[in-house]
Amino acid sequence: MSTIDLDEIIKALAHPVRRDILNWLKDPATEFPDQEHSTDFGVCCGQIDQRCGLSQSTVSAHLATLHRAGLIRSQKVGQWHFYKRNEETIQAFLDTLGKEL
Amino acid sequence: MSTIDLDEIIKALAHPVRRDILNWLKDPATEFPDQEHSTDFGVCCGQIDQRCGLSQSTVSAHLATLHRAGLIRSQKVGQWHFYKRNEETIQAFLDTLGKEL
Repeated sequence: MSTIDLDEIIKALAHPVRRDILNWLKDPATEFPDQEHSTDFGVCCGQIDQRCGLSQSTVSAHLATLHRAGLIRSQKVGQWHFYKRNEETIQAFLDTLGKEL
Repeated sequence: MSTIDLDEIIKALAHPVRRDILNWLKDPATEFPDQEHSTDFGVCCGQIDQRCGLSQSTVSAHLATLHRAGLIRSQKVGQWHFYKRNEETIQAFLDTLGKEL
């Protein structure tokens, strides 16, 4: 993602659960201690479902929104999807917002 | 407003017209050269309506959203309402978001 979509990102951040997910992904080992896989690939969607305490489909929609906005990256390993923060986009967003506001 | 409401502010910023208004209010003299009153009080709502090119009621709703979020201040002078940016809240929001994200 070379340019950021400010609109898409602000909308993605407008839900507190999505901000929580981004926050938890800062420190996967502490926030998701039950994950059996290494957190090198990121955090498995099942772990995020559990941490949110919401249905799989709801969390899946939140993750899709974050992913579409470029705030997280996903990687499929075997049958699992793993998610990480996209620090470049997050930083570019903060920089842009700081200038625009 | 001593503490900022992150949720309310992000929702207020989620509409490009509201971000435009905040932006124009950075430089009232340049952005609203037709205003007859001094811009010391801020910018008159009628000027903002014109600049947006939207109906008075639509702009009024946008201004109310920005005001509720604490991003702008309003002042009634005579029969007119004037609006200014609330720089303290804007800065506090950027600081909080930078830490939270």
